[in-house]
Amino acid sequence: MDEKKIIALFKKVKAGKISTHEAFLKLRHLPYEDLGFAKVDHHRLMRTGFPEVIFCPGKRIEQIVAIFKSLSRRNKNVLLTRADEKIFGKIKKINRRAAYNKVAGAVYVLEKKPAKSGFISVVCAGTADLPVAEEAAVTAAVFGSCVERVYDVGVAGLHRLLDSFDRIARSRCIIVIAGMDGVLPSVVGGLVSCPVIAVPTSVGYGANFNGIAPLLTMLNSCAPNVSVVNINNGFGAGYIASLIHKMSLCKN
Amino acid sequence: MDEKKIIALFKKVKAGKISTHEAFLKLRHLPYEDLGFAKVDHHRLMRTGFPEVIFCPGKRIEQIVAIFKSLSRRNKNVLLTRADEKIFGKIKKINRRAAYNKVAGAVYVLEKKPAKSGFISVVCAGTADLPVAEEAAVTAAVFGSCVERVYDVGVAGLHRLLDSFDRIARSRCIIVIAGMDGVLPSVVGGLVSCPVIAVPTSVGYGANFNGIAPLLTMLNSCAPNVSVVNINNGFGAGYIASLIHKMSLCKN
Amino acid sequence: MDEKKIIALFKKVKAGKISTHEAFLKLRHLPYEDLGFAKVDHHRLMRTGFPEVIFCPGKRIEQIVAIFKSLSRRNKNVLLTRADEKIFGKIKKINRRAAYNKVAGAVYVLEKKPAKSGFISVVCAGTADLPVAEEAAVTAAVFGSCVERVYDVGVAGLHRLLDSFDRIARSRCIIVIAGMDGVLPSVVGGLVSCPVIAVPTSVGYGANFNGIAPLLTMLNSCAPNVSVVNINNGFGAGYIASLIHKMSLCKN
Amino acid sequence: MDEKKIIALFKKVKAGKISTHEAFLKLRHLPYEDLGFAKVDHHRLMRTGFPEVIFCPGKRIEQIVAIFKSLSRRNKNVLLTRADEKIFGKIKKINRRAAYNKVAGAVYVLEKKPAKSGFISVVCAGTADLPVAEEAAVTAAVFGSCVERVYDVGVAGLHRLLDSFDRIARSRCIIVIAGMDGVLPSVVGGLVSCPVIAVPTSVGYGANFNGIAPLLTMLNSCAPNVSVVNINNGFGAGYIASLIHKMSLCKN
Amino acid sequence: MDEKKIIALFKKVKAGKISTHEAFLKLRHLPYEDLGFAKVDHHRLMRTGFPEVIFCPGKRIEQIVAIFKSLSRRNKNVLLTRADEKIFGKIKKINRRAAYNKVAGAVYVLEKKPAKSGFISVVCAGTADLPVAEEAAVTAAVFGSCVERVYDVGVAGLHRLLDSFDRIARSRCIIVIAGMDGVLPSVVGGLVSCPVIAVPTSVGYGANFNGIAPLLTMLNSCAPNVSVVNINNGFGAGYIASLIHKMSLCKN
Amino acid sequence: MDEKKIIALFKKVKAGKISTHEAFLKLRHLPYEDLGFAKVDHHRLMRTGFPEVIFCPGKRIEQIVAIFKSLSRRNKNVLLTRADEKIFGKIKKINRRAAYNKVAGAVYVLEKKPAKSGFISVVCAGTADLPVAEEAAVTAAVFGSCVERVYDVGVAGLHRLLDSFDRIARSRCIIVIAGMDGVLPSVVGGLVSCPVIAVPTSVGYGANFNGIAPLLTMLNSCAPNVSVVNINNGFGAGYIASLIHKMSLCKN
Amino acid sequence: MDEKKIIALFKKVKAGKISTHEAFLKLRHLPYEDLGFAKVDHHRLMRTGFPEVIFCPGKRIEQIVAIFKSLSRRNKNVLLTRADEKIFGKIKKINRRAAYNKVAGAVYVLEKKPAKSGFISVVCAGTADLPVAEEAAVTAAVFGSCVERVYDVGVAGLHRLLDSFDRIARSRCIIVIAGMDGVLPSVVGGLVSCPVIAVPTSVGYGANFNGIAPLLTMLNSCAPNVSVVNINNGFGAGYIASLIHKMSLCKN
Amino acid sequence: MDEKKIIALFKKVKAGKISTHEAFLKLRHLPYEDLGFAKVDHHRLMRTGFPEVIFCPGKRIEQIVAIFKSLSRRNKNVLLTRADEKIFGKIKKINRRAAYNKVAGAVYVLEKKPAKSGFISVVCAGTADLPVAEEAAVTAAVFGSCVERVYDVGVAGLHRLLDSFDRIARSRCIIVIAGMDGVLPSVVGGLVSCPVIAVPTSVGYGANFNGIAPLLTMLNSCAPNVSVVNINNGFGAGYIASLIHKMSLCKN
Repeated sequence: MDEKKIIALFKKVKAGKISTHEAFLKLRHLPYEDLGFAKVDHHRLMRTGFPEVIFCPGKRIEQIVAIFKSLSRRNKNVLLTRADEKIFGKIKKINRRAAYNKVAGAVYVLEKKPAKSGFISVVCAGTADLPVAEEAAVTAAVFGSCVERVYDVGVAGLHRLLDSFDRIARSRCIIVIAGMDGVLPSVVGGLVSCPVIAVPTSVGYGANFNGIAPLLTMLNSCAPNVSVVNINNGFGAGYIASLIHKMSLCKN
Repeated sequence: MDEKKIIALFKKVKAGKISTHEAFLKLRHLPYEDLGFAKVDHHRLMRTGFPEVIFCPGKRIEQIVAIFKSLSRRNKNVLLTRADEKIFGKIKKINRRAAYNKVAGAVYVLEKKPAKSGFISVVCAGTADLPVAEEAAVTAAVFGSCVERVYDVGVAGLHRLLDSFDRIARSRCIIVIAGMDGVLPSVVGGLVSCPVIAVPTSVGYGANFNGIAPLLTMLNSCAPNVSVVNINNGFGAGYIASLIHKMSLCKN
Repeated sequence: MDEKKIIALFKKVKAGKISTHEAFLKLRHLPYEDLGFAKVDHHRLMRTGFPEVIFCPGKRIEQIVAIFKSLSRRNKNVLLTRADEKIFGKIKKINRRAAYNKVAGAVYVLEKKPAKSGFISVVCAGTADLPVAEEAAVTAAVFGSCVERVYDVGVAGLHRLLDSFDRIARSRCIIVIAGMDGVLPSVVGGLVSCPVIAVPTSVGYGANFNGIAPLLTMLNSCAPNVSVVNINNGFGAGYIASLIHKMSLCKN
Repeated sequence: MDEKKIIALFKKVKAGKISTHEAFLKLRHLPYEDLGFAKVDHHRLMRTGFPEVIFCPGKRIEQIVAIFKSLSRRNKNVLLTRADEKIFGKIKKINRRAAYNKVAGAVYVLEKKPAKSGFISVVCAGTADLPVAEEAAVTAAVFGSCVERVYDVGVAGLHRLLDSFDRIARSRCIIVIAGMDGVLPSVVGGLVSCPVIAVPTSVGYGANFNGIAPLLTMLNSCAPNVSVVNINNGFGAGYIASLIHKMSLCKN
Repeated sequence: MDEKKIIALFKKVKAGKISTHEAFLKLRHLPYEDLGFAKVDHHRLMRTGFPEVIFCPGKRIEQIVAIFKSLSRRNKNVLLTRADEKIFGKIKKINRRAAYNKVAGAVYVLEKKPAKSGFISVVCAGTADLPVAEEAAVTAAVFGSCVERVYDVGVAGLHRLLDSFDRIARSRCIIVIAGMDGVLPSVVGGLVSCPVIAVPTSVGYGANFNGIAPLLTMLNSCAPNVSVVNINNGFGAGYIASLIHKMSLCKN
Repeated sequence: MDEKKIIALFKKVKAGKISTHEAFLKLRHLPYEDLGFAKVDHHRLMRTGFPEVIFCPGKRIEQIVAIFKSLSRRNKNVLLTRADEKIFGKIKKINRRAAYNKVAGAVYVLEKKPAKSGFISVVCAGTADLPVAEEAAVTAAVFGSCVERVYDVGVAGLHRLLDSFDRIARSRCIIVIAGMDGVLPSVVGGLVSCPVIAVPTSVGYGANFNGIAPLLTMLNSCAPNVSVVNINNGFGAGYIASLIHKMSLCKN
Repeated sequence: MDEKKIIALFKKVKAGKISTHEAFLKLRHLPYEDLGFAKVDHHRLMRTGFPEVIFCPGKRIEQIVAIFKSLSRRNKNVLLTRADEKIFGKIKKINRRAAYNKVAGAVYVLEKKPAKSGFISVVCAGTADLPVAEEAAVTAAVFGSCVERVYDVGVAGLHRLLDSFDRIARSRCIIVIAGMDGVLPSVVGGLVSCPVIAVPTSVGYGANFNGIAPLLTMLNSCAPNVSVVNINNGFGAGYIASLIHKMSLCKN
Repeated sequence: MDEKKIIALFKKVKAGKISTHEAFLKLRHLPYEDLGFAKVDHHRLMRTGFPEVIFCPGKRIEQIVAIFKSLSRRNKNVLLTRADEKIFGKIKKINRRAAYNKVAGAVYVLEKKPAKSGFISVVCAGTADLPVAEEAAVTAAVFGSCVERVYDVGVAGLHRLLDSFDRIARSRCIIVIAGMDGVLPSVVGGLVSCPVIAVPTSVGYGANFNGIAPLLTMLNSCAPNVSVVNINNGFGAGYIASLIHKMSLCKN
């Protein structure tokens, strides 16, 4: 039961063939898998178009392995975020195709090929923002997008950004990651015609307040095409960018 | 010189026919209009795909009129946000097709018809959120999107939201507006497969802190398809939703 | 001298048989036990209906043992919160019936059976909230309530919560624990007819600010049956829920 | 269809006579009343045991009247909070039994008599806290509780509080309201054996920060029987206290 | 006794001709003028190279007039900040050469000609920042600098800023004023080789927090030549820019 | 040259025998001792009536020893705050009368006897506040006051405080130390007729915010005899209490 | 029953002639006067050595008059803070000796002469701080202290402060009031040997945050003789300074 | 292509010999050096007059070495901030003239001699501020300024500051560094006639909030010649002071 079936279901609802309540009931039928310590939400793929992701911190390694196995049975691509090498070792033994992005701290299986049409860009201000940028890039790739990386183009040397301008400007969606003063999304947003997802990072010192300064900068951006996710939330940015990219691929 | 020409330009760049610098130079040729007190950015349409909007507070009425005239010469649709009835009176005299959305405080000219394919939804929690919701809805309409309004469906009565579920779920993008505790975007985000733009409002009292509480709720949303704009920023949300809708209309 | 005697005392006051001052004097007669480094408040049982609890952090192990012995002489049930296994080892040697809840970090002696009538529920959003949830559950049990645990039912997968709805809805009081965006108490509060005690946790990252985000969400809850305790304060929530449960058992 | 019927329904669910989903479906059947600008939630009485309340600020007077009429058809007691005398005038014409509590700014119809057994107390620190205190008291009365008012007993003159001690100590639940330093709930909480609902008020100056200071004091209360609602939220406190009182009246 | 004399004094100190203490004593000899309600600090010109300025808010009009007269006796240029037209009327009667900058709310007498060599620039992002920008410009002029105004060049239309680049780049010091996201000083700072004084304004809404957002952006600027003054403090920025300009005019 | 001489000096000034400037000059004559890395301010004893204290954190052990030797030459009593046992070891070798208060982390030499008349009290809420309380107590003793310690009397068990009431009420000044909700100073302040110095501690969790909660409680105290020092600043409180005590010993 | 009697009472307690409890009982005997809307605390004079003060904001004029009459019957000196001229008019009719300090907004009756020995100083930085300074000065006078006013001596012109140094240095206690950067208490504190009470004011703009900036400056003062009261709390400062002055008058 | 050439270029622009766009194009021609992990901005020297600096934290040692080599090829003076001894070891092997300032944690090569004319001062309040002070001093030296160090002159002993007054007063620019209450820049700013760059440090405890307290103090400084950089940002202060010094050396 995938997204098409769900849309068919709603068409029936609209046509009056089944009631709203019956439709919702059907949606609720597909059970989650109860592992005791967690309820793995296979349902999510249907509801949201994307499988659940394993956020590793605070979970024991056996729990991670169990959730991974459960997800693997139903998904081609699987993503584990904030994972260390030890976790990667365990996952690698279970699935030889698992790969590890060390900078992002992400383990992933990428068996389903990305969309051929269009791409998203991941732009970051400084080298210290790379872990968040890579998390965004890996996430978008796992969820089916081609990704262009444009790194170390902060406004302190504006010409570096302008040099990459033509690469960036054709993106379906641009993720812009910055710590310190967080000005890069405003500058990029003013130059392009696609949605910009801004990610503040906790990189900086003093009155940066662990990312509050760039978060506020981004929320107050003069460029109206900028929306914002949580501090260091590379995963969320990659996920949303991929959603927007996917939207642009729909046959309307 | 519209978006297609710009893309053609970049294709030349990619093919090595012109340099990056020449391309940027060309982009910079189209001048803004200098009104003395303001520099009207006709260029923006080219860069970003949308014309400039007049944010009224802090501008004198003659200034607003002058900017309106300047924008009208080049754009079919024009939008003035945070405008009162007095401003509407003046604008109405200049362009008889100008309309006024009283709840949103928005004056607009809407001569270019919205896209036929797909729609966006504007969902809000309570009646006090209506000004922000209407600003979002009008903005999205002016920038070319059909808009579904789903109002007063806060989680205090969750069944009202579920009743509208099938309407909401087929949107290209959903704007969710909430004050008080700001929980609605998380709930909606967990139920749908499209991007959700969350708008915190300053509605509430006590520890709401003029919208900080729902802003934080939304930034921390467990649903990964939620990105956030500034408190009460209905305009930004409508703009981005319209951008995403437009993305979904591209022939790839 | 237990609660009944105190009520009897107040009845005398009301009847004018003794003065207010004499009554207060009597209340003050039962001395606390002075251990030098601490004044163990046996009086609290009379005043509040519950014995004192040992909050372990910052106390040396000999102090904990001494307070435990002092409390054990007068109470059947004893609770030590935020205790590690080393503390449990010491306590176990003193009282073989002592048990250890590892997730909660709670040592307890539970000799007095819980009330047969009614129960409270402890609901939590994610697996990372378990330590706080278990602290709440153990506390309520030690103070005499049956406890239903409903875990990992965050709104990102709303159907999991709805599936547990009938279990939850018959509770005398519901403790709802959530980090991240903290929306679960609002959703639960809107569905049930009993008091909800909301506990924000410091689980989350970025703009979660160690629990401030869910704290604000909960304080601003649209559901009017929600009151809030301090961040991570599972003990307080369990205590209050148990108090409310106890209230519901009074023969009026 | 009242609470008893709902409980009967759940018993059927438990007995396996109907499925969870069918039960939820039934719950969703009772429609809200759609007034166009608002969706009046008659359903709430069933779900939560209390009717909806009209929070007046931000609503136009015709809207308030329409919602009042809608609620009056199904409820004996009706409450309008944050209402001015003009609103009262209008309501009075519709229902002659409507009364007005000027200090609280509350209009109410109180036709259903309060419970005979037990009472709640509303305690406040200073005369400036009276509007919030009265809102709490009126709310609790409308929802069926007898209310004892104990005002102007702040800790700057501790003996005034102690003098009222015997009145307070027999309450089913105590609402304690304080601005400035917000210490009163901690002091009361340490003296009694029932739940305490603390309400910070925005009364104070300087580093009071419109109620943040007493809010923090109360959240950090050393007395474990204290839970907290939003700043100035007399309504919420009255509602919860009444819920707890009601709990204590159940025949178990 | 002007700056040269003071320097001469210090040379004597260095040469051992007078003691440090005697020198300090001399400095303290020139009395302030005691008007009863204020102590006018004529001394400041000697200590700091600039006369005292009248900050009008909170002063009664007679007081302002009295201080103005006192200052006028000893200074050619006089400045009154945050002054309304009524104050200007009174001052105009006393000194016919007084002028009024309405946007800045500044009354000034400018009899001493500005330095011929070099200039400072005042750059601002939007038209709403004009009052602060004009206060900075007037202040710098009164204290002896030529001023270039470059207004409405926010990064939402980056080409407008680049167009003014050659004007800006030759300044002795640049004041950059911005509200909203406050990114302009970072962008300007990265392009030029002179000191940049950043002034956050309280222009914006929502999470702008009356200028905290741009203040933090500026304090965290990646461009190392940016220092910051208080929110809306156009006066301070103009004063410091003028000081730096003056430094560049010294014959070393 | 001690305080009496300074007062004599001022009397001369008043009598017109020497000028203000000459007097100030004299005050500046007594040189500080320049150790290269620090300028030891022997002058302070004259200006303020108390010798300088060595705040150890961030200083190297050789530096501490050098400053100690410098101070010892001119003062009978010497105090080192925030010192560890290693520092004590070194100091002990230099002066055999040095003592160490382990809880406070204070090393001190106490050769000058405390005043016989009157005493100050140090009152604290819980055992976790002891390090701050002991720092206050040791400081007051070193600066010449008798100290009464009244510990573990938090308002959760109000009777423990009342039991010590007569001891506390005769103090010349009371230092009240509390973390968590910080209510103790308000309660004590309302009961006594002497100045109360409130010290918030960073003891607590969740919304305590490392002492901000009790700091705000204390600043907002309803009792007007309460003034506040910095979080955990036991030294400052002890110093001020001792100053007030000393004031009460003057022969007027 | 005045302070001496209370001390006598406690001496009996110490001598074992009466129990602690009996003593406390006696203290509680003197009733407050219950005016219905307020409980006037005549008891306070005994407990704290000072009569209650009428804080006017939020009280109706009849209430103020009633409380004034009640207080006047037992006190020679009476103080009403934050009072307007209308209140003064009413009070003047009741007691012809009532005076009005317009700057402070204080009405007072001052029949009991101030102490002859010693004085306190009220020092403020700028003319905008005068209302708070005058409230402090009037309060201290009403409670029996001679007061020296030293105004407009902010550190921007340090020589003005130094000129008043000999007046200030002989005070029993110094109140230092400052807004803006709040540095004056640190500078004064470093120069004198008596306790300094620092009062931050909400005077300032931008990042002053209504007094938070000077509040933090003062709490972090390097001068250890500085304690702090709430923002704008001139009354509290005057009260405490007077208490300290009174302490210095005791015959020990 | 150095600064002179750039100025020549702009003169051509002004003379109309080349267009703005051509000039900007030329500026963009000088490429940065792409090291893969970083884009070294040699261009910066031209744009800003200063070479890029290596901020070490978060960079791997090989990366630091590579960037150092790249910078060394084009600059005589090179600076590495926040570097440990291990980094110094590596750099020393590459360039024997590299030196290490241990207190500042700065590695530097200083082959180009400082300007002979004029100097800047680095003033700090306490010994704990030395690392930030030394970072400022080394930075200013590397960028070509003579530096006077005036340390440990906090206002707690104001006479120490006054003693250094004549040294300080002749500076071209003064950097004032302070933690705790951060009052030193206000005091210095009020005494001198040159620009003051204030640097708050995170030195302090309690309500210092890691430097927020002195940051706010400095932003609110009453002395109008004070501008502020980020907490602990010694580098930025040194850089700006050096820029201002350089300005004063221009032959106008």
